[in-house]
Amino acid sequence: MSPGLLKSLIILAILAILRLSFAFQLDDTLTYVWPLPSEFSSGDHTLSVDPALSLVVSGDGGNSSIIKDAFDRYKRIIFKHGESFSIFQMFRYIRPAYDISKLKIEVHSRSEELQLGVDESYSLFVDKNDGQSIIAEATIEANTVYGALRGLETFSQLCMFDYGTKSVQIYKAPWYIQDKPRFSYRGLLLDTSRHYLPITVIKQIIESMSYAKLNVLHWHIIDEQSFPIEIPTYPKLWEGSYTKWERYTVEDAYEIVNFAKLRGINVMAEIDVPGHAESWGMGYPDLWPSASCREPLDVAKNFTFDVISGILTDMRKIFPFELFHLGGDEVNTDCWNSTSHVKQWLQDRNLTTKDAYQYFVLRAQEIAISKGWTPVNWEETFNTFASNLHPRTIVHNWLGGGVCPKVVAKGFRCIFSNQGFWYLDHLDVPWDEVYEAEPLEGINITSEQELVLGGEVCMWAEIADTSNIQQTIWPRAAAAAERLWSRREAISSGNITLTALPRLHYFRCLLNRRGVQAAPVENFYARQPPIGPGSCYEL
Amino acid sequence: MSPGLLKSLIILAILAILRLSFAFQLDDTLTYVWPLPSEFSSGDHTLSVDPALSLVVSGDGGNSSIIKDAFDRYKRIIFKHGESFSIFQMFRYIRPAYDISKLKIEVHSRSEELQLGVDESYSLFVDKNDGQSIIAEATIEANTVYGALRGLETFSQLCMFDYGTKSVQIYKAPWYIQDKPRFSYRGLLLDTSRHYLPITVIKQIIESMSYAKLNVLHWHIIDEQSFPIEIPTYPKLWEGSYTKWERYTVEDAYEIVNFAKLRGINVMAEIDVPGHAESWGMGYPDLWPSASCREPLDVAKNFTFDVISGILTDMRKIFPFELFHLGGDEVNTDCWNSTSHVKQWLQDRNLTTKDAYQYFVLRAQEIAISKGWTPVNWEETFNTFASNLHPRTIVHNWLGGGVCPKVVAKGFRCIFSNQGFWYLDHLDVPWDEVYEAEPLEGINITSEQELVLGGEVCMWAEIADTSNIQQTIWPRAAAAAERLWSRREAISSGNITLTALPRLHYFRCLLNRRGVQAAPVENFYARQPPIGPGSCYEL
Repeated sequence: MSPGLLKSLIILAILAILRLSFAFQLDDTLTYVWPLPSEFSSGDHTLSVDPALSLVVSGDGGNSSIIKDAFDRYKRIIFKHGESFSIFQMFRYIRPAYDISKLKIEVHSRSEELQLGVDESYSLFVDKNDGQSIIAEATIEANTVYGALRGLETFSQLCMFDYGTKSVQIYKAPWYIQDKPRFSYRGLLLDTSRHYLPITVIKQIIESMSYAKLNVLHWHIIDEQSFPIEIPTYPKLWEGSYTKWERYTVEDAYEIVNFAKLRGINVMAEIDVPGHAESWGMGYPDLWPSASCREPLDVAKNFTFDVISGILTDMRKIFPFELFHLGGDEVNTDCWNSTSHVKQWLQDRNLTTKDAYQYFVLRAQEIAISKGWTPVNWEETFNTFASNLHPRTIVHNWLGGGVCPKVVAKGFRCIFSNQGFWYLDHLDVPWDEVYEAEPLEGINITSEQELVLGGEVCMWAEIADTSNIQQTIWPRAAAAAERLWSRREAISSGNITLTALPRLHYFRCLLNRRGVQAAPVENFYARQPPIGPGSCYEL
Repeated sequence: MSPGLLKSLIILAILAILRLSFAFQLDDTLTYVWPLPSEFSSGDHTLSVDPALSLVVSGDGGNSSIIKDAFDRYKRIIFKHGESFSIFQMFRYIRPAYDISKLKIEVHSRSEELQLGVDESYSLFVDKNDGQSIIAEATIEANTVYGALRGLETFSQLCMFDYGTKSVQIYKAPWYIQDKPRFSYRGLLLDTSRHYLPITVIKQIIESMSYAKLNVLHWHIIDEQSFPIEIPTYPKLWEGSYTKWERYTVEDAYEIVNFAKLRGINVMAEIDVPGHAESWGMGYPDLWPSASCREPLDVAKNFTFDVISGILTDMRKIFPFELFHLGGDEVNTDCWNSTSHVKQWLQDRNLTTKDAYQYFVLRAQEIAISKGWTPVNWEETFNTFASNLHPRTIVHNWLGGGVCPKVVAKGFRCIFSNQGFWYLDHLDVPWDEVYEAEPLEGINITSEQELVLGGEVCMWAEIADTSNIQQTIWPRAAAAAERLWSRREAISSGNITLTALPRLHYFRCLLNRRGVQAAPVENFYARQPPIGPGSCYEL
């Protein structure tokens, strides 16, 4: 062997050893809770958590079954690894003493109503009980059960299984956390028309949303491709489903709403009218202006509005959330003009097709409002006839930047979903662009800022189905979730590659450990597979 | 408008209507149970199944908790859709009469031992009880609890939720099914070294395996990249894990084994020696011949075999399955020759490196056998020194075709995993090539055919992690599962595009409904997203 070759081999060997033996450590200056709490302090103690952790409730709302269910759920998450048993080490059966054996949850309000702006604040204290402190070992205090749920999520993220001691530990105790969301609306859109999602899958996604403290499932149920949901008043509508198995019964929908509620998540339903509604005509062809003009819905027939009214009456019984999305985007009215009876109807009223589009949207709004809904509409409605929209309208941005500033300047409320950053089907948007998109950008007056309800990431499903939807959603939805929850100052300063990225890697691995198919954070395109062997923690 | 344009528009409109209004029907001549049962007959009645379905057990093994647990699990699967309730139709509260309100399970044997060749046969009868028949409404009869589990899976696949009546129905009753597997070994390999898989994810995969009646999880735990599992006798070995969170405790492994057992699935562990073992040296660098030669393991030290013996002693307590995989593939011995003490050792014994490779494998086999294991080795061991292998050796084919014929001709047992068809990380292999790969190809003598234990699909994880492993496994693993379960004549004749493909589409949708991320069946590459909106059932 030549000396040069020997040298090369030695260097290669050293590099290889370094690669393997680099003991990965978390950056101890960071807080590995996602999204970052509003205010917190930590210490330098390590506390052990009893696998037999017990729940102690107090307050008017403490006895809620929502709390009990959530505690059981989180216990299963926290104590995934069984206790040591006796195959190898008998002495492990001696039950050790734990620092944290009680979690006290105090909930002030008895009300379980879940509406926009519900109080999600909570305090979480974790400290060793020295027998003198009035603070229990771990205490969550909240005004509502939903605040307590957020506190439980945070508590679960503080709990880490330690493979050395084979016990769950809380590092950096004592913890004092005072937390609340920056925005009241933190949404994820699911599209069940382009591909049907089984209820099991929708539940998996709702469960994962709760890990990132998202609180609105925007259910884009119906679109031009399929009409999967049962509408008892118009029972032929779901003949527009792809197949007779790709449907949701009323009971399914109700179950989804209830499953979400137990996790503090509202379900906002959408019917996207008058465009994106071709599938409605499968059961009721009269809703199509003609066989060759099947979208937008027929503006000239009262039947169209009867059906909308029927749908909204039925849905009102299923969806208690005060917001209802009426769509209104991408309406191409050309074929109204080429359908004789619609053309006649327009002429009789001296309306342009653009007028008719406005007429349709406003009439749908009236129906929704008459049933007690607050209407949400995609931004085209605002862009086209802002001054005529019902003042309670919430405008849903999607086309690009700069929309919410205009919306709130006119006194409307706004939801931010700029497609350049928050459309999850745009696979070329990396995590940091999702993270840095700011709903309040360009809005500097406090009263106008308050009209921005929050934002939503949108999982349009043209090229996403059960097989790949979770890794398209995660981890990028988490980047938006922190933007929507955490204090703007805390997450907008400094170098996010140092302050956020390691925490997002960690949260992605946490999702994986909980069985969520979150994709690698730094893939060139979203949801791409890893490029080679390696750690989830991306050494 | 020109007449030509009008005509075109009409044709387009008709085509569009046809696309949407095509009411998808199952091909009624096919049996939508996957894998196809061995013998069955069906009728033309439709029976309703009571959501309060009760279990009646009998036989010596009927009282097993395995049966009770499985029944509860399958009830949750079968009755995913809640019963109708009263939001819309009060009268639905009148409890209807159901045809099937009891499932009788008779298990003859009390033994719950799960070993290679365990009796998985079962009979399933489903008929309306007219009060005269001695056959209960639905009856599963099996010799073992594991046969009963297979019967429960089949029963669950007969049950379909009908959106019209909002009840679970069994079509084409009465059913008389006599079923048993063609092969006793029907495996899936999971590789937790190239990417760590959380225990929750491994459990999800085990659960999904049971849907396709696969019965062996081949756990390729360790490889050169990481050593994730705890070995109490050599506690520094898992220092070779990627991070301190990407590990399995003894208790985790035991829990996985137990979780699998409850689903009739054995776990076969593997340590792949002497190659594919670089990570072992992270905790014990003495296992490396030198810093620049870290693989294969040091053949010259007794310590190497002490560690193997320690691992096998520890693992024997965790893994009750009689088969243990010792690897033995892709051994490049070049650097043994360039390591002075190994070279000296070889010279002292007058051994070539090839001799030393044989020496290593045979000594590892002896250790395994001394601890009561049956050794399994990758085919290179057979290809290199067949005549010296222990006669109990099971040879695991992977490199290509024609290997099992040679293996069984020499009297060894064989597992078929031809990488050209059954390596799931080969994304370019379409479902039909997976389906048509035949473990008995080229083996015509019955006594030799009996030496083929079955086969295994291999999910190597270089480019698969939690985010995408399930859609890489499914649905192609199901194609192999039917090959391994069903009668060869039944699945090898006719045009599989007509006989198998529609059933595989259906089974993929069933997996989706159960929350498994199975990918579209006919994607050009495996695990690709759908190319546009559409039905799971691929109209």
